[in-house]
Amino acid sequence: MPKVKRIDHVAIVIDDVDAAAAFWQDALGLSITKVEEEPAEKTVVAFLPVGDGEIELVKPTDKESGTARFLEKRGPGMHHICLEVEGLDDMVAHLKAQGVQLITESPAQKPDGTRYIFIHPKSAQGVLVELYEKP
Amino acid sequence: MPKVKRIDHVAIVIDDVDAAAAFWQDALGLSITKVEEEPAEKTVVAFLPVGDGEIELVKPTDKESGTARFLEKRGPGMHHICLEVEGLDDMVAHLKAQGVQLITESPAQKPDGTRYIFIHPKSAQGVLVELYEKP
Repeated sequence: MPKVKRIDHVAIVIDDVDAAAAFWQDALGLSITKVEEEPAEKTVVAFLPVGDGEIELVKPTDKESGTARFLEKRGPGMHHICLEVEGLDDMVAHLKAQGVQLITESPAQKPDGTRYIFIHPKSAQGVLVELYEKP
Repeated sequence: MPKVKRIDHVAIVIDDVDAAAAFWQDALGLSITKVEEEPAEKTVVAFLPVGDGEIELVKPTDKESGTARFLEKRGPGMHHICLEVEGLDDMVAHLKAQGVQLITESPAQKPDGTRYIFIHPKSAQGVLVELYEKP
C-alpha cells in the first residue's frame, strides 16, 4: 500500500530575497541551510529546515516560468505543499484510478534521485500538491 | 531564545466536504481523525495527521467569517501555515522589535490551552502564518 509519510515542504514564491530572509531568518529564527538553482523549473530555491520538514523560498529566475506567472497574477505567497510518499508508482496508479488529475503522466526525477509528480489543484481543493519519493 | 519547532499544520479552506474527503482520505489515504466546530472562527475543521504535523480542512459555517470571504474571493485553497513555537511571548516581543506586523496585539487561547497568534501576510511574503504554543 502506498503511504503519505510526512509534509516534506511548503513552497512559498517570493520576489524580494532580502525581505524574505529578514522575515524567515532574522525574525522567525529559521536558517537558510542551502540555496540551489533549479534550471528545469527556472527558479532558485532557499531551503529552511523546520522540524522534519522544510520551508522553501522559491524565486523565479526567468519571467517565462510558472512561478513568475504565479507572482505576476497573485503576488508572493504559498505555492504548493509537498508530501513525502512511500510507493510513488502505486500511489500514482491509485490516484489515476480514483480520477485524480495529475499535471504530468508519470513522475519526473531530480538529480539527487528524488522522484516527484504534481497533482492538479482542480483535484485537490485548489491546492497544488507535490508528491516526493526519496531514493 | 524562542524557537520554531516544526510545521504544526497547513490549513486548506474548502467548500465541498465530500470532494475534499474523496481526495485527501480516499485518494491520498490520509485519515480524518477528528472534526471540530470552532465557534470563535465560525468554522468546522477536519484534522488529518501526516507525519508529526497535520492537514486541516477548514469549512466556514457562517458567510460573515474570514474563511467565507477567502472562499468567495479566491475559491478553495491553502489558507495558512502554522508553526509550533517554544517561547511564544518572547517570539512575539522579538517579532515586534523586528517590525513584523501581527494580526492581534497578543496571543489568544484555545479551550485546550494552546496559545496562538497570526502574523500578517504583509510581513511574510503574502503568507498568513500562525504561531502555536502548546500547553
